[in-house]
Amino acid sequence: MWADLAPVGQDPRTGGYRRFAWTREDATLREWFAGEAHRRSMEVVSDRAGNLWAWTADADARPGLVLGSHLDSVPDGGAYDGPLGVVGAFAALDLLDERGVEPDRPLGIVCFADEEGARFGVACAGSRLLTGALDPDRARALTDADGTTLAQAAGGAVDVDRLGRDDEALRRVGTFVELHVEQGRGLVHRGVAVGVADSIWPHGRWRLDLPGRADHAGTTRLADRDDPMLRLAAAVLAARTSAEAHDALATIGKVRVEPGGVNAIPSALTAWLDARAPAAAAVRVVVDDVAAASRAVPVEESWTGATPFDTYLRERLAALLATPDGTPAPVLATGAGHDAGILAAAGIPTAMLFVRNPTGVSHSPHEHADTADCLAGVEALARVVAALR
Amino acid sequence: MWADLAPVGQDPRTGGYRRFAWTREDATLREWFAGEAHRRSMEVVSDRAGNLWAWTADADARPGLVLGSHLDSVPDGGAYDGPLGVVGAFAALDLLDERGVEPDRPLGIVCFADEEGARFGVACAGSRLLTGALDPDRARALTDADGTTLAQAAGGAVDVDRLGRDDEALRRVGTFVELHVEQGRGLVHRGVAVGVADSIWPHGRWRLDLPGRADHAGTTRLADRDDPMLRLAAAVLAARTSAEAHDALATIGKVRVEPGGVNAIPSALTAWLDARAPAAAAVRVVVDDVAAASRAVPVEESWTGATPFDTYLRERLAALLATPDGTPAPVLATGAGHDAGILAAAGIPTAMLFVRNPTGVSHSPHEHADTADCLAGVEALARVVAALR
Repeated sequence: MWADLAPVGQDPRTGGYRRFAWTREDATLREWFAGEAHRRSMEVVSDRAGNLWAWTADADARPGLVLGSHLDSVPDGGAYDGPLGVVGAFAALDLLDERGVEPDRPLGIVCFADEEGARFGVACAGSRLLTGALDPDRARALTDADGTTLAQAAGGAVDVDRLGRDDEALRRVGTFVELHVEQGRGLVHRGVAVGVADSIWPHGRWRLDLPGRADHAGTTRLADRDDPMLRLAAAVLAARTSAEAHDALATIGKVRVEPGGVNAIPSALTAWLDARAPAAAAVRVVVDDVAAASRAVPVEESWTGATPFDTYLRERLAALLATPDGTPAPVLATGAGHDAGILAAAGIPTAMLFVRNPTGVSHSPHEHADTADCLAGVEALARVVAALR
Repeated sequence: MWADLAPVGQDPRTGGYRRFAWTREDATLREWFAGEAHRRSMEVVSDRAGNLWAWTADADARPGLVLGSHLDSVPDGGAYDGPLGVVGAFAALDLLDERGVEPDRPLGIVCFADEEGARFGVACAGSRLLTGALDPDRARALTDADGTTLAQAAGGAVDVDRLGRDDEALRRVGTFVELHVEQGRGLVHRGVAVGVADSIWPHGRWRLDLPGRADHAGTTRLADRDDPMLRLAAAVLAARTSAEAHDALATIGKVRVEPGGVNAIPSALTAWLDARAPAAAAVRVVVDDVAAASRAVPVEESWTGATPFDTYLRERLAALLATPDGTPAPVLATGAGHDAGILAAAGIPTAMLFVRNPTGVSHSPHEHADTADCLAGVEALARVVAALR
């Protein structure tokens, strides 16, 4: 399965992936998902948001146990973030099958649509639409860099008029467990291959619109300039200083400069701020500091409060994945948002398992997990299914 | 003529112009130029660099007097920078014709190719190729943002194998006079519609390659980051501080961020620095300061030393354009590069006339000159031709 996915959307220059929602690459990945499901005699259904669900035959019996993750990527992303959870889910079911373990409840594998938000700017768009956390009218109107709306892009694969909370699809999800590569070195420090998620930090994205006045770079006196590049510099420095002061993370990773001529003072600049922290109040302080430094009114493009995962499930999985000497699996918080967090916030008992990442690097072609650790993740998923079936 | 040009390459959102070298818009402008020349029974020839020259019939007699400028623009540029000098040249010849002034020497009007360098990054590419200041191999290999080379883009209009210094074309240019909208408020302060250029400041463009390490914005500790956005901020602030300290101008107007994801720490960032000053040493200090602040090794993409215009010609034009009370026309230095500067540096007696710009704004849709002042510029050109014929 890993070899099948390897070439899809890979940039030959960097080795990174460009698998953006509702593109040709995305369609290829969705076809691959349906093929793997059919090969295992699972039924594939799309919910109203375009997330794909593969279900074992007895799907309508009672709420099922669902594994899975997503297949899309950030620009120049790694191979593991997302695909590990989907491939791992299929592999775990294969393992149980080999071992003759028969589940009593329906088993599902989900492939969430547009988790990264790389194209339309809203992360976890598929799971947010599913649970009603993202307004369908707002979703339809989201545009990519070329001005294509999400409604236009997804129109070929989904009935975009029916986007919105899907109670029927949600009712079938009794429990959701997402396997994911760790995006940090918590498991490296603990010397363990697999851990359990504690909670997801509060996090959000803000757009900073920084207008200026276009002018000739070679003739306009410094005193006469209104150059938004200086406001960007102030925003970048304030983001770092404030995040350091408040135990938060703050990043400006995307910038648009108009008109972008070497000899033209920019007429306008747009920057996007990503901010996260263990405490929501710290995030708000950082955003305020950046806004003050750059004299911008930040536009909140997304906000997710602190999301603790189901306490009972978390403790049960930590015990279930204990080492032979009885030490429970480590429990780790994360600053990254996930579809599992969206489902948890919607009241579905949800857990996440992390697989060790030797460098901690993520959202990069250098993202990596050792094969042995990936297989430990699959084994962990299989044990979870065997215990929760 | 002005109304004919108005719609070509105009952005309907901003009213600014996107007239880039060797595009469809550029071809339309070149056709327009040839049409205006033919209407006046002038012969149109292209030199080896793709610059267009319209000559009166007695072209081969002796070196001629050439007027003109360029028709391309920066991204979202104004209507006057370039076109005023070309339209003004045709209008001046029409005025002399009406007045029955017969020139004794050949008269030419030039439309220089790719003055702004907006597409391929080298300003005055047409005049630099003509005079040999730009190496033809380097020119052919220049690429635009889409990876198209100049050789590919210009290939339809010019024999790109023959790019290079064109002695035959240069021999025909006895004197060159370029009319241009002022890119500052020097004439506003002096209360005069038309002035004469003194010299062009030394100026150049440098590329700053700022590598970083791609990482997840939500999980990578601040201390573990190598975020090139911080180096950009340092470069922007150093450019301003150093320029203020050394009486220079420094601008970062173009930035490229890789991969440009909201939740990804950039893997690399490229910024372009434009720096100019009355003294070359001041420019060098500013570039060094920016390099030190951003820990970059600047790549010099272009450099032009101080270019004084022909002293005799400058004084003669200032006297010729004196007010009725005998006050000579003002003489002004400029920080902007021009084709006239390239020709002057190649030893051709060259002058520039500036037309008053009420706001001083340039390289922007707000660039403006009053019609009365434009007509004063045409009148000035006509007087120059009458005197130098």
